[in-house]
Amino acid sequence: MVDIPILILNGPNLNMLGKREPAIYGATTLADLEADCREAGKRFGLAVDCRQSNSEGQLIDWCHQARDTHRGIIINAGGLTHTSVALRDALSVAELPIIEVHISNIHAREEFRHHSMIAPIAVGMICGLGTTGYRLALEAMAEIVADIEA
Amino acid sequence: MVDIPILILNGPNLNMLGKREPAIYGATTLADLEADCREAGKRFGLAVDCRQSNSEGQLIDWCHQARDTHRGIIINAGGLTHTSVALRDALSVAELPIIEVHISNIHAREEFRHHSMIAPIAVGMICGLGTTGYRLALEAMAEIVADIEA
Amino acid sequence: MVDIPILILNGPNLNMLGKREPAIYGATTLADLEADCREAGKRFGLAVDCRQSNSEGQLIDWCHQARDTHRGIIINAGGLTHTSVALRDALSVAELPIIEVHISNIHAREEFRHHSMIAPIAVGMICGLGTTGYRLALEAMAEIVADIEA
Amino acid sequence: MVDIPILILNGPNLNMLGKREPAIYGATTLADLEADCREAGKRFGLAVDCRQSNSEGQLIDWCHQARDTHRGIIINAGGLTHTSVALRDALSVAELPIIEVHISNIHAREEFRHHSMIAPIAVGMICGLGTTGYRLALEAMAEIVADIEA
Amino acid sequence: MVDIPILILNGPNLNMLGKREPAIYGATTLADLEADCREAGKRFGLAVDCRQSNSEGQLIDWCHQARDTHRGIIINAGGLTHTSVALRDALSVAELPIIEVHISNIHAREEFRHHSMIAPIAVGMICGLGTTGYRLALEAMAEIVADIEA
Amino acid sequence: MVDIPILILNGPNLNMLGKREPAIYGATTLADLEADCREAGKRFGLAVDCRQSNSEGQLIDWCHQARDTHRGIIINAGGLTHTSVALRDALSVAELPIIEVHISNIHAREEFRHHSMIAPIAVGMICGLGTTGYRLALEAMAEIVADIEA
Amino acid sequence: MVDIPILILNGPNLNMLGKREPAIYGATTLADLEADCREAGKRFGLAVDCRQSNSEGQLIDWCHQARDTHRGIIINAGGLTHTSVALRDALSVAELPIIEVHISNIHAREEFRHHSMIAPIAVGMICGLGTTGYRLALEAMAEIVADIEA
Amino acid sequence: MVDIPILILNGPNLNMLGKREPAIYGATTLADLEADCREAGKRFGLAVDCRQSNSEGQLIDWCHQARDTHRGIIINAGGLTHTSVALRDALSVAELPIIEVHISNIHAREEFRHHSMIAPIAVGMICGLGTTGYRLALEAMAEIVADIEA
Amino acid sequence: MVDIPILILNGPNLNMLGKREPAIYGATTLADLEADCREAGKRFGLAVDCRQSNSEGQLIDWCHQARDTHRGIIINAGGLTHTSVALRDALSVAELPIIEVHISNIHAREEFRHHSMIAPIAVGMICGLGTTGYRLALEAMAEIVADIEA
Amino acid sequence: MVDIPILILNGPNLNMLGKREPAIYGATTLADLEADCREAGKRFGLAVDCRQSNSEGQLIDWCHQARDTHRGIIINAGGLTHTSVALRDALSVAELPIIEVHISNIHAREEFRHHSMIAPIAVGMICGLGTTGYRLALEAMAEIVADIEA
Amino acid sequence: MVDIPILILNGPNLNMLGKREPAIYGATTLADLEADCREAGKRFGLAVDCRQSNSEGQLIDWCHQARDTHRGIIINAGGLTHTSVALRDALSVAELPIIEVHISNIHAREEFRHHSMIAPIAVGMICGLGTTGYRLALEAMAEIVADIEA
Amino acid sequence: MVDIPILILNGPNLNMLGKREPAIYGATTLADLEADCREAGKRFGLAVDCRQSNSEGQLIDWCHQARDTHRGIIINAGGLTHTSVALRDALSVAELPIIEVHISNIHAREEFRHHSMIAPIAVGMICGLGTTGYRLALEAMAEIVADIEA
Repeated sequence: MVDIPILILNGPNLNMLGKREPAIYGATTLADLEADCREAGKRFGLAVDCRQSNSEGQLIDWCHQARDTHRGIIINAGGLTHTSVALRDALSVAELPIIEVHISNIHAREEFRHHSMIAPIAVGMICGLGTTGYRLALEAMAEIVADIEA
Repeated sequence: MVDIPILILNGPNLNMLGKREPAIYGATTLADLEADCREAGKRFGLAVDCRQSNSEGQLIDWCHQARDTHRGIIINAGGLTHTSVALRDALSVAELPIIEVHISNIHAREEFRHHSMIAPIAVGMICGLGTTGYRLALEAMAEIVADIEA
Repeated sequence: MVDIPILILNGPNLNMLGKREPAIYGATTLADLEADCREAGKRFGLAVDCRQSNSEGQLIDWCHQARDTHRGIIINAGGLTHTSVALRDALSVAELPIIEVHISNIHAREEFRHHSMIAPIAVGMICGLGTTGYRLALEAMAEIVADIEA
Repeated sequence: MVDIPILILNGPNLNMLGKREPAIYGATTLADLEADCREAGKRFGLAVDCRQSNSEGQLIDWCHQARDTHRGIIINAGGLTHTSVALRDALSVAELPIIEVHISNIHAREEFRHHSMIAPIAVGMICGLGTTGYRLALEAMAEIVADIEA
Repeated sequence: MVDIPILILNGPNLNMLGKREPAIYGATTLADLEADCREAGKRFGLAVDCRQSNSEGQLIDWCHQARDTHRGIIINAGGLTHTSVALRDALSVAELPIIEVHISNIHAREEFRHHSMIAPIAVGMICGLGTTGYRLALEAMAEIVADIEA
Repeated sequence: MVDIPILILNGPNLNMLGKREPAIYGATTLADLEADCREAGKRFGLAVDCRQSNSEGQLIDWCHQARDTHRGIIINAGGLTHTSVALRDALSVAELPIIEVHISNIHAREEFRHHSMIAPIAVGMICGLGTTGYRLALEAMAEIVADIEA
Repeated sequence: MVDIPILILNGPNLNMLGKREPAIYGATTLADLEADCREAGKRFGLAVDCRQSNSEGQLIDWCHQARDTHRGIIINAGGLTHTSVALRDALSVAELPIIEVHISNIHAREEFRHHSMIAPIAVGMICGLGTTGYRLALEAMAEIVADIEA
Repeated sequence: MVDIPILILNGPNLNMLGKREPAIYGATTLADLEADCREAGKRFGLAVDCRQSNSEGQLIDWCHQARDTHRGIIINAGGLTHTSVALRDALSVAELPIIEVHISNIHAREEFRHHSMIAPIAVGMICGLGTTGYRLALEAMAEIVADIEA
Repeated sequence: MVDIPILILNGPNLNMLGKREPAIYGATTLADLEADCREAGKRFGLAVDCRQSNSEGQLIDWCHQARDTHRGIIINAGGLTHTSVALRDALSVAELPIIEVHISNIHAREEFRHHSMIAPIAVGMICGLGTTGYRLALEAMAEIVADIEA
Repeated sequence: MVDIPILILNGPNLNMLGKREPAIYGATTLADLEADCREAGKRFGLAVDCRQSNSEGQLIDWCHQARDTHRGIIINAGGLTHTSVALRDALSVAELPIIEVHISNIHAREEFRHHSMIAPIAVGMICGLGTTGYRLALEAMAEIVADIEA
Repeated sequence: MVDIPILILNGPNLNMLGKREPAIYGATTLADLEADCREAGKRFGLAVDCRQSNSEGQLIDWCHQARDTHRGIIINAGGLTHTSVALRDALSVAELPIIEVHISNIHAREEFRHHSMIAPIAVGMICGLGTTGYRLALEAMAEIVADIEA
Repeated sequence: MVDIPILILNGPNLNMLGKREPAIYGATTLADLEADCREAGKRFGLAVDCRQSNSEGQLIDWCHQARDTHRGIIINAGGLTHTSVALRDALSVAELPIIEVHISNIHAREEFRHHSMIAPIAVGMICGLGTTGYRLALEAMAEIVADIEA
C-alpha cells in the first residue's frame, strides 16, 4: 500500500532551529527535524513532505498546491500564527485536515501569542512539547486520514 | 480617445477563485473574472490591467508602480485587508483613487473580518455582491477619474 | 415582461440632500436622486419605488409592507445604520434581499460610524461612491432578483 | 371587585407575529396573543389593555399615559430593548411595576441582544418561553399589584 | 396518566432562603418553596423532585442522573450562574429542556451578575419575580414537555 | 431691533416635567419652563420658540426647519442624547450654533449617560443646574449669535 | 446684607489665558476674567475670591480652607480635571456646592478629555461657552446658595 | 525497571464520555479510555493511574497527593479549564510536569473556551485530537520524565 | 468574660503551607499557623476556630453555620478569591464582619489575581504580610467585634 | 538598642482626618493618629517619623530622603494611590520595604479606586481597617526590618 | 553668533540618577548629565539650560517661562509622562519644538509606561539609549531650530 | 582598526522616500539617505550596510544572515512595525543590539501606529526626527557596540 502524502509546513524563523542557543533549544536543526518527521511518517504509513519559508506568500502557494497533491497539512506557522488571515484562508482553501504544532507553549509566553488565527480552522493543536510535537501530530494525522478513507 | 489605465489588484487566495466548491462560489475563475473586467472596462473607457499575488511585498511593489502608470486602483486584498498596514501605506503612496472590493459580505462573517485597514484611505467599498462588485467598481471608477480630469 | 418592484428606503436626514453645502455634496437633491433611480431601474427591468422618512417607526412599517409588495430593498438608513436593532429586525422580517448604500465612506469617518447594524443581514454594501452607489445597487439587485427567479 | 387595569406594550416588529415563518414561530398572530392575554388577565383579576407600535415615540407616550390609567406594564420592546434610553426613562416616569417579556431567549442570540436597557428598572424578566411568557407575566403582575394594594 | 418527572435544582446559598432578613426576603424557606413547587407541579401534571446543594460537583452529578430519570430541569444555580462552565456543560449533557430561574432581578444588581453562563443553553429564563418564578417555570415546563411528547 | 429667533428643543420625557415627584424635581412644568424661557429670551433680545416631542423623527424635522427659520438651537435631547446618531446629524445639517442642556448632572448618573452623541457638535453644554440651565444657555446663545452678527 | 463668599479656582495653565494666540482665544487675560467675575459676583450678591495655581497640592489646600471660609466653589481644574483623584477628594472634603467650568468644549476634543474626575461630585458643569461660562456659573451658584440658605 | 507512575486526571463531565450522542462522540467510554491509557502507558514505561471527578475540591486533593506519589500529571479539566484558579494553583503545588489535554478543539468553540487557566503552568497542551490526545500526551510525558531522570 | 468565637477559613491549597519550597515560603505549616492564631486570639479575647477545605461547597456550608455560632470571619479563600460568586454570597449571608487575608501580595502577581470577589463585601483586607497577616487580622477583628458590642 | 527609624507618609487630604463628619469618620485627627503611631512604634522598637503633604512633589522628595535615613516606609497616598507613577517610582528609588495602608476599603468604593499604582512595588497592603491599619502596619514592619537585619 | 537657548527639563526622580544602583544605571549623576548636555549643546550652537523638579507645578511654570526665553524644550518627564494632561498642556502653551527623551526603553517595561501623554505634541521621541539620548536630542534640536530660523 | 559592520534595514514603502510629495517629505531619496548613513557610519567607525525590501520574508532572511555578519541592526520596519510578530522574532533570533527608527512621530498619528511589535525587543527607539534619526541611531549604535566590545 502506498504511503499517504502529508505536507509539513514550517513558517518564519523555523529555519534557524538548532542554530540558536543550542544549550537551550537543543541541537536539533530543521534538517534533523525534517528527517525525523519523514522517518516517523513512514512508520505511520505517511509520505512526509517538509517545506519551510519565511515568506507568507510562499506558504500560501504551498497550501494551494497541497489541495491536489497531499491529504493533510501539519503546520507551525511561527509568528504568522497570531496575525495572518491570509494564511488561515489558504489553509481553508486547501480543504484538508490541518494540525497546528508549536514547539514552545504559546500560552505561557507574551499575551499576543495566546491567540492563533489558525487554530479555529484546524482539527487540533499540539504545543509546548518541543520537536516531539511534530511526531505526535503525524501519529494523529495518520488516524485522521485513515478515518476519512474508511 | 485613449482608454484610461486602471489597475485591479487581487490579493491572497483569489487565484483559487472558481476552483473551490464551485457549487457555492460559482464556476467563475480568476481568469474569467479578469477577462470580464477587461471587457467591462472597455465599455467605460478604461484599460483594465489585472494582477494577482499571494505576496504582500509583490502587491506593494505594484501599488508603487501604479503611481506612474495607472489612474486608479481597484483592490480586493483578501485576508491582508484586515491586517496589512504596509499595504495600506503603499496604496496611500500611490496617490490614486482606490475602490475596495470584496466578493463576500465581510460584515456578515467572523468578527476579525469586519474591520478593513484599507477602507479609511479608499474612496469607497463594495462588498457582498459577488464578482459583480468588480464591474460596479469599474463603473464608479470611470466616473471618479472623469471627475478628476474635468 | 413586467418590471420587478424594488423599494429604495432613505432614512433620517437624506431629505436634506442637495440643500446642504452644495459645493461639497453636489446639487443633487433627493428628488433628483429618486428620479435617477427610477430611470436607472427601468434600464435594469426594475420598478423603483422610493421613500424617505426621518422616523424609524415609518421605515419599519415600510419594510413590513415590502414583504408582500416588493422583491428587494435598497436602504440607506442614515444615522439609524449604526444604532437601530429595530430597523435591522424589520429588514429581516421582510425576507427580501437587502443592499445597503452609503453616500459617504463610513469607514473614513468617526469611529461610531464604522459599524453597521444592517450590514450583517444584507446581501452586501456599497459605500463612499456618492449617489452613484444607488445606481450600482440597482444594477446588482437586478442580478440578484433574476437569480432568485431562475 | 373591579379588574385592575394593566397595559401590555409590544414594540417594533411584533405586529408581524404569526405572519412570518409560521412553521417556526407558530401561527399565533399578535391579535391572537392579545386576545389570549385579555382572557388570561380576567382569570387573574386584570383588565388587560394591549397596544403595539413600531414607533419609539408612541410607546413613550403610552408609558406616560399609563401612569394615570394603569397599575402595571408588561413590555416586550423588541429591538428597542437593547438601545432605547428614552423608552427606559419613560417606563421609569410611569412609576409602575414593569415586567419585561421576550418571546425568544435573548441570551442565546447575537451578543448585542444580551443586554437590556429596560431590565434594570423592571421588577423582572421572562424570556425564551414563547408567547406563554406573556401569560406568566400577567400571573406574576397580578401578585405584584395585589401586594402593593395590601 | 403518570406525572412527568421534573428536577428542580437549587444551587449555593439557596438553603438559607427565609432564614436571612425575613422582613426583606419573606419568610418562605427552601422547604416551603419546595413544598409549593411539588404541589404546583401536581396541578400541571408534573412530579417535581427538588434538590439543593452548595457543591458544584454535586449539582453536576444530579444533572447527569437527570438525563435518564427526568424530562426537564428548572435550575437556580445561585452564584454559579455567572461562573460555572462545568455546570453549563453538565446541563448540556443532560439533553433536557432547561429553564433558568432567579428570585432577584440579576440585571438590576452588580455588573458581574448580569451575565449567565447557563442562559445560552436554556430554553428561557425567569428572573426578579421572587419565588413565584419557580411556579411560573413549572407552568412553562409543563407546556414544553407536552410539546415534546406531541 | 427685531428679536433673534432661537429654537429650544426638548426631547423624550421632558413633557412630564413637574408632574413627576414634585417634591424632588420641583413643581416647574414644561409649560412653566417654556414661559420662563420665552420671557428670559426677551431680556436677551431673543425670540424663543419652544417645542417638545417624544419622537426622534419629529425632532429631526424641526432641526431641518430651523436651518431656515432660526439662528441657534438649545437642545435637551433626553435619552436620545446618548444614542441618536440621526439626531446628531440633523443638528449638524442645521448649521446653527447648538447649546446642549441637561437638567440633571449626567456625569453623576449611570455610566451610559456619561457620553453624549450631541456634545461633540455643540458649541457647549450646561448640565446639572436644573431648569436654570436653560436660562443660562439663552444668555450664552445671545452672546454667540451677537458675535456671529458682528 | 453681606455678600456670600464664593471661591473660584483655576488650575494648571489658566494663568496663560489671553497671552496665547489672542486671535483665537481672545485677549481676555486671567486678570481680566477674575475682575469680571468679581464684578458679576457683586450683581448676584456674591463676594468672589479668585485663585489660580499650577500645583495640585496648592489647589487641594485651598479646597480645604474653603470649607470654613466660603459657601461654594467654581472650579476649572484644567488638565487635572481628567486625572486627579486627589483634587476630587479635596473638593468632596470641602462639603460645598461645586460647579465645574471649562472654557472649551471638552467633549469635542481628544478622547482623554471627555471624562472628568470632578463632574460626578459637582452639582453641574458648564463647558464650551468661553469665559462667559464663569459668569453663568456664578449666576447658578447664587441660586444654589440661596436655596441652601432658605 | 519499574514503570514511572503518572496520574491522569479527568474533570467535570468526562464521566459521561461515550454515553452521550455516540454517533458523534464515538462509543469510547471513560472506562475504555482509561484502559487504553493504562495499556499505552505500559508501552512507554509508565504506570498510569486514572481518576475522574466532577468536584474541583477532589481534583485539588489528588494534585496534592500526586506530589509525593507520581512523576507527572496529564489533565483534562473540562469546564474548570477556563475558570479555576484554585485547580491551577494545586497543579503548581504538585511541582510536576503537567500536560493539558482536550478532546475537542477548544479554540474552535465558544469564545470563553479559548482561554485556559492551566495552560500557562503546563509544559504543553494537546487539543482537538479526540481521545488519541491522551495517548500522545503519555508518549510526550514518557520523554519528559526520562529527560528529568537523565 | 468568655472569649468571642471567630472563624478562620482557609481555602484551596492552604493545607499545603510549609510543605512546599520551605526555603521560600518558610517552614510554617497550616497546623503551626492555626496554633499561632488560636494563641494570638486568646491574647485578644477571641476563641479562634480554624478550618480549611479545598472544596467551595464546604467553605460555603461553614459560612452558613458561622452565622449562628461565630461573631466574625477571617478568610483566605486562595484561588476562589478571584472567581467565586457563590462564596462571596455565602459570606454575605453570614451577616458577620469579614476580614480577607492573603499571605502573598496579590497585587504584585498575575493580572487575574488583582481582583477579589470577596473584598467588596469585607470590612477590609490584609495582603502580602505573610502569615503575620492572620495575627493582624485577629487584632483588628477584636476591635471590630468590641465596637459592635459597645 | 536604638529604635529603627520608620517613615509614615500620608498623602493628599489626610490632613483633614477627624475634621470631617466626625460622627462617621471618628474624632481621631491626623495629630492623634501620628501620636498613636509614634507610641505604638516604640512598643515595636521603631522610631516613627510622620509626615503629611498634599503635594506629590513633596512626597517624592521625602521618599528620596528616606533612602538614607529610614529603614521602611508606611504610606497612605490618598488619591495619588490610583494615579501617580511618579510617586511609585520614588518609592522604588528608596529601596526600602513599603507597606501600603488605606483607612477605608478601597475595593468597596468607586471602580477607579480598586487599582493601586503602589501595591505592586509594596511588600503588602492593609485596607479598610480604619486607623488601626497603621498600627498593624507598624507591627508588620517591625518583623520585616528584623528579618532583614537577621 | 549667539548660542540658541534650549531648556532641558527633567521630571520626578531624575535627581536620583547615579545615586541608585550605580552598577546597573552607571555612575553618571544628574549633575554630570547636565554638564555633558551643556557642553554638547555648545558644540551644536545651543545654550543649554537644565532644570529638574519632582513637582508637576514647577515643571509647568518652567514651560510657561520658556515660551519667552527659550527656543526649544527637551523633556524627560519621568513618571508624569504617562499621566499628566496638565504638563502636556503646558508644553503646548509654550509653542516651542519639543523632543521627548527617556533613558530606559519605556516600551519594554510595564504596560502603563507604553503610552506617553507628551509624545503626540512632541516633534519626536528618543528612548532606551541611556543618557546618550539627551545628546542626540540636542543634536536633533539644533537642526530643528536651524530649520525654523531659515 | 576595521569598521564594525552594522545593518540598516528599511521596510515596506521606504523605497518611495523622496519621490512622494517632496515639498512635504523633502527631496531626500532612499539612495541619498543610505549614502548619508554610510558616510556618517564611517565617522563613528561603522561599516554601514543598507537594505530595503517591501517583503516581510526578505527582511526576515536578512535578520538571520546578520546574526553571523553584522554587529547591530537599525531598523525602520514601516507598516510591519505594528503588525509583524514574525519580523520581531527574526530580530530576536539575530541576537544583536537593535535600534528602531521612524521618520515620522508614530505617536502623533493613527491609533494603530502607536504600538510597535519591535520596540520591546529593541535597545531603544528614535522617532519623529526625520532622516536625522538614522544618523543619531548610528551614533548610539557606535557606543553600544563599543560597550559590548569593552
